[in-house]
Amino acid sequence: MKTILWKHILAVRTQSPLVHNITNYVVMNNTANALLAIGASPIMAHAREEIDEMVALCSSLVVNIGTLDHAWSDAMLQAARRARALKKPWVLDPVGAGATAYRDKVLSHLIGLRPTAIRGNASEILALANANQSKTKGVDSTAQSSEALDAAQALHELTGAVIGISGETDFIVSDQPLVQIHNGTPLMTRVTGLGCTATALIGAFLAVTENKTEAMAAATALLSIAGELAEKISNGPGSLQMNLLDKLYNLTADEFDNTLRMES
Amino acid sequence: MKTILWKHILAVRTQSPLVHNITNYVVMNNTANALLAIGASPIMAHAREEIDEMVALCSSLVVNIGTLDHAWSDAMLQAARRARALKKPWVLDPVGAGATAYRDKVLSHLIGLRPTAIRGNASEILALANANQSKTKGVDSTAQSSEALDAAQALHELTGAVIGISGETDFIVSDQPLVQIHNGTPLMTRVTGLGCTATALIGAFLAVTENKTEAMAAATALLSIAGELAEKISNGPGSLQMNLLDKLYNLTADEFDNTLRMES
Amino acid sequence: MKTILWKHILAVRTQSPLVHNITNYVVMNNTANALLAIGASPIMAHAREEIDEMVALCSSLVVNIGTLDHAWSDAMLQAARRARALKKPWVLDPVGAGATAYRDKVLSHLIGLRPTAIRGNASEILALANANQSKTKGVDSTAQSSEALDAAQALHELTGAVIGISGETDFIVSDQPLVQIHNGTPLMTRVTGLGCTATALIGAFLAVTENKTEAMAAATALLSIAGELAEKISNGPGSLQMNLLDKLYNLTADEFDNTLRMES
Repeated sequence: MKTILWKHILAVRTQSPLVHNITNYVVMNNTANALLAIGASPIMAHAREEIDEMVALCSSLVVNIGTLDHAWSDAMLQAARRARALKKPWVLDPVGAGATAYRDKVLSHLIGLRPTAIRGNASEILALANANQSKTKGVDSTAQSSEALDAAQALHELTGAVIGISGETDFIVSDQPLVQIHNGTPLMTRVTGLGCTATALIGAFLAVTENKTEAMAAATALLSIAGELAEKISNGPGSLQMNLLDKLYNLTADEFDNTLRMES
Repeated sequence: MKTILWKHILAVRTQSPLVHNITNYVVMNNTANALLAIGASPIMAHAREEIDEMVALCSSLVVNIGTLDHAWSDAMLQAARRARALKKPWVLDPVGAGATAYRDKVLSHLIGLRPTAIRGNASEILALANANQSKTKGVDSTAQSSEALDAAQALHELTGAVIGISGETDFIVSDQPLVQIHNGTPLMTRVTGLGCTATALIGAFLAVTENKTEAMAAATALLSIAGELAEKISNGPGSLQMNLLDKLYNLTADEFDNTLRMES
Repeated sequence: MKTILWKHILAVRTQSPLVHNITNYVVMNNTANALLAIGASPIMAHAREEIDEMVALCSSLVVNIGTLDHAWSDAMLQAARRARALKKPWVLDPVGAGATAYRDKVLSHLIGLRPTAIRGNASEILALANANQSKTKGVDSTAQSSEALDAAQALHELTGAVIGISGETDFIVSDQPLVQIHNGTPLMTRVTGLGCTATALIGAFLAVTENKTEAMAAATALLSIAGELAEKISNGPGSLQMNLLDKLYNLTADEFDNTLRMES
């Protein structure tokens, strides 16, 4: 799988897919820069008047509810509906799932539009599965990551989406064998929006391969490895953010091969 | 007071308080990163539908009117009302007070909801005091900083809030003796949003101590010292911004002690 | 012309003009930081209630439609109308011109309000000229840059604005001889919003000189040279962005003279 993931990374660099993002205010700049650094072309647009054209122009869609409100959730729903109609891949980032009833309501509409992929942290995936009445084994039974795995499995069965759980180990749940990626560094949690960045990168990889599991694995591996290598030359979260963008841009096949710790 | 300020810094690092921010588009990324760097957990959310729940979830609230409009000022007012009802601390950043009648109108509604703390530059504090008919001695009588001190005193008496005036010297006016902090560097004024960052950090410290004066002093000292130390290894405002985030993250007790220049 | 451009750069540093920006969410932070780095004072404000006062307060206006929607395009139109009424210079960045019918409609209203300057990439200038029925020689006749030159000429004749085309070579079309600037580096296209930054800097220079061609040339030269010099000490787009801000701040007359490659 290692070899095919690197091929997908090269495909993004050479094909430079247009990725349409409807995302939150906090991370727009980061995720645009991360997409540019890996070779993709980001577009950020949310006006109802142009969403149908924008989705049609682009190769994939990223929907992130971080700073949602009424107008933006309408835009997200319209874009997801359009992507579905055009059979274009789209990825959902359920930021803050479970935090408020409003988020859960909007997410349940979005889930109904069948995202190609969903990525969140363990508590978001758990909340999303529970709110949508997937048959999870309950929140307080066992350790968090294994619970989230059950929740992810249930979410996958409910929606057909490939599900990513970010954390110390990143898990990818789909109809293919479970993928586990053990890269990254805790300092990445002290930079805002790296989860959102992972989701944006997944959007780029969904544009270059039809294998959804590989798309998510390539994006996850690339970001985690870049972060891990960047951390070695960083003094804190400020320099990590800068070095991470540099490394997304100049990562070599050798660095990728020598750093990746993946099970599947 | 030095010792207690460092204790508050450690408290933020260990307690990682949830801080709810309704702030401007320009600085959302910076202030989220600064809050993460000091160990706090930022949330940015402004939808009317979820504000009541978000304020209840968080330990404190930051309201910054930088890029206000009708919808956002409604959200700010609702959040401030909710924070007041739940007796949660909230801090106001009156960006551009006095620049337009609209800003002054929104600010006068916000002031009426009794912020726990207010931080601005000298001209914002002067404008805020004048617009709210505090008994200041008039804008053109003496030097700006001493006038702003009178305005701050009047604002404090009017609202009960602890008042911070940012500048070459930072002043903190409350029912405790005047605090003066002489740290920082002029290059910090060439990075956008460091005033807004100061306000966000105040929000984090209000979540870990009931002493409002100490909360503001800890936030102000931490940011000014981090900026001052970062400037020594920076070539301009770009590297200052990066090094400042690193230093907020890795500042040591010794660095804090050896750099702080405070009178109180 | 070299000497006069450097004089304008010093004028921005010493006069610190207030520049009002109604721009997109992705780049607000970047463009505010770039304006601060060159010595200008950015203001970001879009509320209908305060736009008239804000335009009156500032020395120039920057309108960028990147993440436009109904409310924001109303704000842009109101601000442009007000700038025109007060005879203040304003610059338009037609981000994504030609991508959707909605963008073209909003742009045609904005063009009607006679921007002082317009800056875009070749395809945006072509789309803008075509959508506004300028007499361009057609899109598919010759190489893209020369076509864009014809389109720029037509747009200039239609609007009276000085027109900038960004690319490997930057062109400036006005009633003065064609200006060509051959600075910059391809890595700049991997940092989000540097085109938007160019437009914001043009706004600052329009505030210090009535010569529109020189204003655009000074902004374009300054940004391209800073990017070119920054690239020499950068490992990728992350460090380029940081070093670019530093260089905008500390560029010397000698560096400017020795690096500028301009024809006019």
